[in-house]
Amino acid sequence: MQNEMVALARRARIASRQLNRLSTEMKNSCLRAMADALMQDQELIRGENEKDLAAGKESGLSSAMLDRLDLTPKRFEAMANGLREVADLPDPVGHVIEERHRPNGLLLRKVATPIGVIAIIYESRPNVTADAAGLCFKAGNATILRGGKEAIHSNQAIARTLITAARTACPDFPEHAIQVVPTTDREAIPVLLAQTESIDLCIPRGGEGLIRAVAECSRIPVIKHYKGVCHVYTDRDAAPEMAQAIVVNSKTQRPGVCNAAETWLVDKECDAMMVLKIAQALTAAGVQLRVDQPTSECLTAGGIPFELATDEDWDEEYLDLVISVKMVDGVQGAIDHVNQHGSGHSDSIVTRQESTAKQFLSEVDASAVYWNTSTRFTDGAEFGMGAEIGISTDKIGARGPMGLPELTTYKWIGTSDGLIRG
Amino acid sequence: MQNEMVALARRARIASRQLNRLSTEMKNSCLRAMADALMQDQELIRGENEKDLAAGKESGLSSAMLDRLDLTPKRFEAMANGLREVADLPDPVGHVIEERHRPNGLLLRKVATPIGVIAIIYESRPNVTADAAGLCFKAGNATILRGGKEAIHSNQAIARTLITAARTACPDFPEHAIQVVPTTDREAIPVLLAQTESIDLCIPRGGEGLIRAVAECSRIPVIKHYKGVCHVYTDRDAAPEMAQAIVVNSKTQRPGVCNAAETWLVDKECDAMMVLKIAQALTAAGVQLRVDQPTSECLTAGGIPFELATDEDWDEEYLDLVISVKMVDGVQGAIDHVNQHGSGHSDSIVTRQESTAKQFLSEVDASAVYWNTSTRFTDGAEFGMGAEIGISTDKIGARGPMGLPELTTYKWIGTSDGLIRG
Repeated sequence: MQNEMVALARRARIASRQLNRLSTEMKNSCLRAMADALMQDQELIRGENEKDLAAGKESGLSSAMLDRLDLTPKRFEAMANGLREVADLPDPVGHVIEERHRPNGLLLRKVATPIGVIAIIYESRPNVTADAAGLCFKAGNATILRGGKEAIHSNQAIARTLITAARTACPDFPEHAIQVVPTTDREAIPVLLAQTESIDLCIPRGGEGLIRAVAECSRIPVIKHYKGVCHVYTDRDAAPEMAQAIVVNSKTQRPGVCNAAETWLVDKECDAMMVLKIAQALTAAGVQLRVDQPTSECLTAGGIPFELATDEDWDEEYLDLVISVKMVDGVQGAIDHVNQHGSGHSDSIVTRQESTAKQFLSEVDASAVYWNTSTRFTDGAEFGMGAEIGISTDKIGARGPMGLPELTTYKWIGTSDGLIRG
Repeated sequence: MQNEMVALARRARIASRQLNRLSTEMKNSCLRAMADALMQDQELIRGENEKDLAAGKESGLSSAMLDRLDLTPKRFEAMANGLREVADLPDPVGHVIEERHRPNGLLLRKVATPIGVIAIIYESRPNVTADAAGLCFKAGNATILRGGKEAIHSNQAIARTLITAARTACPDFPEHAIQVVPTTDREAIPVLLAQTESIDLCIPRGGEGLIRAVAECSRIPVIKHYKGVCHVYTDRDAAPEMAQAIVVNSKTQRPGVCNAAETWLVDKECDAMMVLKIAQALTAAGVQLRVDQPTSECLTAGGIPFELATDEDWDEEYLDLVISVKMVDGVQGAIDHVNQHGSGHSDSIVTRQESTAKQFLSEVDASAVYWNTSTRFTDGAEFGMGAEIGISTDKIGARGPMGLPELTTYKWIGTSDGLIRG
């Protein structure tokens, strides 16, 4: 198994060099051919998917897990459309990020290049196989895909279809540019993540447990986010209706995702009426409030139901219609709370006071910070990226939503007319 | 010791938040005050340095090591001038890298921010203490400095002077923004490099052994280069005089540094006279040639001395007046050799043929690639960065010479007039 993983990673490295020679047009025709082939091979892939579903039922997977595993006709269409959209996006490779003319005649250009080989480690959704492989491929990278063991037949069938289609559309497509790890052995993961000579980056996608396990054992750089403990801070100078709309939207518009708010921070100088109205609106939207002592006094006066928060609540990602609420000492109190308890994902301030906003935006340490805006906007599509492979809360490499440009690195290209150093 | 390292890292994290509030002007006056103080405290620091020198002599350090350790008046001046130059450089923090106006009214700005806490692990030169702390500080980062045990008194004395000067110049300077690890216990390093909650990045500086040891044990992202196995490829379409000048300059202008060439790749279609002339020029400059079989035949015909290369030579960083020479099958052969044996540092092609150059520049996987230019230009000063903390051959995070902007990350700042997601 050790040897198998080393060989697989080396094949990916070689394929990544060959990928570098494909033109944008070639890559786009591969992507469109992959999309068509997924629709054409639907029956075939569905057959493999049913093996996974049957095994999943037998092993007692939850209905939620079985649903994620199920490749419905709608999901085939989503995969195909996703690949076509990636084909339509501009090629990030070759983009000149910066140009410098040095006084000695040296022209330096900082140019976007593929990262090389990217390992994607994910859980049960087989559609990730097509989505991730397509995005990485457009940015010139070879992928090593390791999905959940419950989706192995589906993942392998999807990859086979993608590769065959790409090779038919473009004979130069290297067949090892997309590889599904053929074993479901758990021991394969640490072996794979030790191949620093052949693999450049690992992007884990899934629950916090999976991501922590990957980050713990990897010798390869990992770009990730563990969770989204996002905050909305309503300042004393917030416009009350805007504050209410943003708190409610950030919490309730889609509570199960990472950019939903988990904590509402209230400036203790806020008008009590505003606090009560926002609390009322949250309650009316079915949100349970877990509040600190000062907030509880305010809510009791207004007859609004709540529970008292425990220390654990401030670090909790509920992913549900629950919000923790804390009174803080102005913007500095809010910043200190966010920097201590936040996950570096998305945090928002509501205020009319520009200087207060600037302090929050500058001092909160997160991949996305917002002023008078819902936290729900941290997302590749909302950022105009077209498609995203994930969101990063890291500081080295890409931060925030990761689209195609975030799947590239850069090199410096120096040109002159024979310049030597004196 | 475990607790001591955890506490030290946490203090750095808190200091990094406080650093974020200092204005550019404040940071610059701190840097200038640090420079003045180093000159003023010269006697004091020299006293501590002599303790290190005495201990080093006693423990039998080589004269080269003792020389690196020795804080001469010239080195004090270099440290002070370095800090003043950093003060004069533009502040990278706050730079708007990109701005996007979304159709819904959301304004997104991608803004450079400090990374946070950076650990610098280095060997015997105590001047790194001032150089690294100054650069990281200007970019808004707190530093944890861990130098060689043989320089511990010097490093602590330098840090004390820097901190005292900064606090006098600016009372808001957080005293833990610059910390020297107070123990020389080797076990401190893995403990420190496990503090992923408090430390954002590690930059090791020194020999390959040190850097590999750090990269092996770190749970924190590491930016590094192991070595510089740099290549010059002379193509069949190279201008002979330019080819000679570039090969000789890349090898001999300063053979002991990482951007010096270690291998000369010769297109087998090159004119034999050109090869002989370049080989002659190298020999005349005192360079020993370690060559493959085809090159040896050419050199024998010209009566030029050589040794036959072994397989190990192609991966060797000589750091000396030695060069390996190999005949390759055109530009594709050169690219394949560089991608297999190079260290991803700096590689150059000499050719008049633009299409050949483009292929090399695109397909060679290195942080800097050159056309008709010596490899010796990969360097912060030559890139116009003013000062560098090191060179990276990594692909995640900064690549190539790392100046102030490379010591920042970014955040997305979203602003709107109350935008919520529908």
